[in-house]
Amino acid sequence: MKELNVFFEPKTLAIIGASDQFRFGYATTNYLLNSKFKTYPVNIKKDEILGHKAYKSIKDIPDEIDLAIILIGNDYVLESVKDCVEKGVKGIVIESAGFAETGIEKYVNIQNEIAKLAKESQIRIIGPNCIGVTNFYNEFTTADMAFDQTIKGSVSIVAQSGVLGNIFIDWATDQGIGLSKAITIGNKVDVDEIDMLEYLNEDPETKVITLYLEGTKRGKALMNTLKKSEKPILILKNGRSGIGSNAVKSHTGSLAGNDQIYDGIFKQFPTVFRVNNFYEMFNIAQVFATQPLPKGKNVAIITGSGSLGALACDEIEKQGLILANLSKDTINQIKKVIPNWVSINATIDLGPSIFQTLIPSLKAVFEDKNVHSVLFIFSVPRWPLEMFNISPALFFDHMKQLSKEYNKPLICVCFGSRWTFDFLKEAALSTKSEVKIPIMTRIKHAIKAFKMMYEFNRNFKVKND
Amino acid sequence: MKELNVFFEPKTLAIIGASDQFRFGYATTNYLLNSKFKTYPVNIKKDEILGHKAYKSIKDIPDEIDLAIILIGNDYVLESVKDCVEKGVKGIVIESAGFAETGIEKYVNIQNEIAKLAKESQIRIIGPNCIGVTNFYNEFTTADMAFDQTIKGSVSIVAQSGVLGNIFIDWATDQGIGLSKAITIGNKVDVDEIDMLEYLNEDPETKVITLYLEGTKRGKALMNTLKKSEKPILILKNGRSGIGSNAVKSHTGSLAGNDQIYDGIFKQFPTVFRVNNFYEMFNIAQVFATQPLPKGKNVAIITGSGSLGALACDEIEKQGLILANLSKDTINQIKKVIPNWVSINATIDLGPSIFQTLIPSLKAVFEDKNVHSVLFIFSVPRWPLEMFNISPALFFDHMKQLSKEYNKPLICVCFGSRWTFDFLKEAALSTKSEVKIPIMTRIKHAIKAFKMMYEFNRNFKVKND
Repeated sequence: MKELNVFFEPKTLAIIGASDQFRFGYATTNYLLNSKFKTYPVNIKKDEILGHKAYKSIKDIPDEIDLAIILIGNDYVLESVKDCVEKGVKGIVIESAGFAETGIEKYVNIQNEIAKLAKESQIRIIGPNCIGVTNFYNEFTTADMAFDQTIKGSVSIVAQSGVLGNIFIDWATDQGIGLSKAITIGNKVDVDEIDMLEYLNEDPETKVITLYLEGTKRGKALMNTLKKSEKPILILKNGRSGIGSNAVKSHTGSLAGNDQIYDGIFKQFPTVFRVNNFYEMFNIAQVFATQPLPKGKNVAIITGSGSLGALACDEIEKQGLILANLSKDTINQIKKVIPNWVSINATIDLGPSIFQTLIPSLKAVFEDKNVHSVLFIFSVPRWPLEMFNISPALFFDHMKQLSKEYNKPLICVCFGSRWTFDFLKEAALSTKSEVKIPIMTRIKHAIKAFKMMYEFNRNFKVKND
Repeated sequence: MKELNVFFEPKTLAIIGASDQFRFGYATTNYLLNSKFKTYPVNIKKDEILGHKAYKSIKDIPDEIDLAIILIGNDYVLESVKDCVEKGVKGIVIESAGFAETGIEKYVNIQNEIAKLAKESQIRIIGPNCIGVTNFYNEFTTADMAFDQTIKGSVSIVAQSGVLGNIFIDWATDQGIGLSKAITIGNKVDVDEIDMLEYLNEDPETKVITLYLEGTKRGKALMNTLKKSEKPILILKNGRSGIGSNAVKSHTGSLAGNDQIYDGIFKQFPTVFRVNNFYEMFNIAQVFATQPLPKGKNVAIITGSGSLGALACDEIEKQGLILANLSKDTINQIKKVIPNWVSINATIDLGPSIFQTLIPSLKAVFEDKNVHSVLFIFSVPRWPLEMFNISPALFFDHMKQLSKEYNKPLICVCFGSRWTFDFLKEAALSTKSEVKIPIMTRIKHAIKAFKMMYEFNRNFKVKND
């Protein structure tokens, strides 16, 4: 898969349809022309773009070109691709839309011609109808990206639609989730999800793969690739319904296929997990990326809200996990530190005493051999946090230390306003610390993460180590 | 239910355990002493609290007292309640915890004694183990609240747990959801969910009731009350699992009951809907509170992302609704305004043309007689919004006008970062406008809202108008 490297680490670039106007393509042009990546603008109407000499055609550029990015109108794309073939580029990203997804015969045919050119020339092509590739490590992107706002990490994204790829990155970054590579593959004239899964499986900067799939044209190859995967792959697959399948067809021109078949396929492979929506996908990916794998099914719950503890118990049962049966020793240790009006029983509900009792209670829980995973549910509103000048760093530092020392996964679920979430996020995910505690707003996603990590460990890791 | 008015509009108050120290009770004391509500502090150790004369006992106050708020340690509560009875108050809110929920015989007995006093004296008591009542209209609260941050509206909240009540308010406010009353009932020594449902059913400022229920002690009465309800009631009930039920028992000392029985009961009543989590509860409540009821099952989807459109189709099918079959006229009108590379078919996916084509497309959709509800899915990242200086007010003003003119519900689902959500929230929910467009981050909640509103209209409204 080394040939796909050209999309992530190109040495020379041409932007066909480079633009100095505030429209689609401007941000990409502006970013790349001012970046460390050697970039040549191609524009049929202009001699200069943002202070750089512009070429009428890629063929006029007096340099070898690794990667061409095509941003022009659908009617002109085929000719540009032919120019790229003549030029001898290694890869092309076609971002322009208006091909098979329109259902119009003319544009379906153009797409087929491009596919043929890719096959014959062995030039790899991503798109059309996408925003291409982002590498969060070397900060190369065809999609324009505010890298000062994104976070380097080990979650990679493969999506069909460009809009969705952007939204995934926006949302994940906002949640404090660190990313490695993001690829949108659009109409998949050549490079598809299978190529990308194989590439990411070998990418040392990727630990977890998230895939938004609308359908595949190569069912058997997909199965083979999923079978060989050594990393967790979280798949969000739409088109579960008949009308959804039709909508997909008109969206990227690919067949969505029978949903039950996909369900059955995914379940066969120990590293593959199907998720229900994209919030769930990234929340769980973040846990895989940052936490040790649980060695068993027992989850302990520690919280300031008995109600939320009870809701978490419901979810543990639903997911087939077990509420940890704490040892007498653990309960005695906690009882030593809590006031008489606090009741611990199934869950450890510290109530408003949480700021005084959380740290010693957590220590007892992590030490307990009956506990494999720890769920911390935070539900303190803004005013007491401000009034009592609570420092989240204090208890998150303890939690990080405990999670590392006992090698058990910990997730923090945060209820309340965005203010509270951001208040915790800083302490939980600080880039200064090597250990990170994932935070999310949904109990369900946390419990599902423990379950999938438990299964990944049991069905894959233990057997392959 | 007029006697419950004392909790929402008390004329005179006593705070037993008023505090001028930064601890539990301080914020309530500080707020009420400086409010328009005539408040007397009671504190056994101090002569003055925050500049106000303090009394050793409520009995020493030289004024009639409507409502007493008890904030002292569990060991002293029973005596205070007796004092309140002697004083002849009309209502008591006991916020102190440490009663039946501890499982300790002594405190179970104290709680029973308090219950007996309530019954004999006919003084209404809320709690213990709660944070009482908030009225967002007259800004009375026993829970302390930053009213400059909350929004007046028509959604009311009944919750058992105090922490949860606070978190509900925090989150709902953050989402731009307007509230009317919030009540936490704790261990329900006297006032319970049934009393509050009946009160809110007659409250002219409440249009939708949200209830977080852990269990009930009066099953038959609850059924009668739900049967008589004339407003939508959204119920979140935990304890679905065995372990969850046990956790509830130790949390508020009440039995959670068999979950299937509750499910069956709730389904009997045309105004009652069960929800799965609290985000869903408030998102749907907000739609009931602000949108007209749909007259049929047909939902139209308008979006800039075909993938999200397809996911919404899946959800429409799952909920038993129908993707609107747009008339030829509607499709022709939209085709007039969209570029050739945009494809509309099952869903109206405007792609990146959305800023030029949204308003005329929306107009055609609202006019279409085959459309009963409209889902608008927004998924534009931050950079083009900023770069092209997009004004959300512009298209939200059009949407508000269309929704009002055609009397059809509209929901905006927003994907992306918190920045984008806040960018839309201001325009969608501006207090300056009489019409509001609910925004949320989950397609599922939007489709469920359309479904519940359709059922409410068909099974209740049409029959009773």
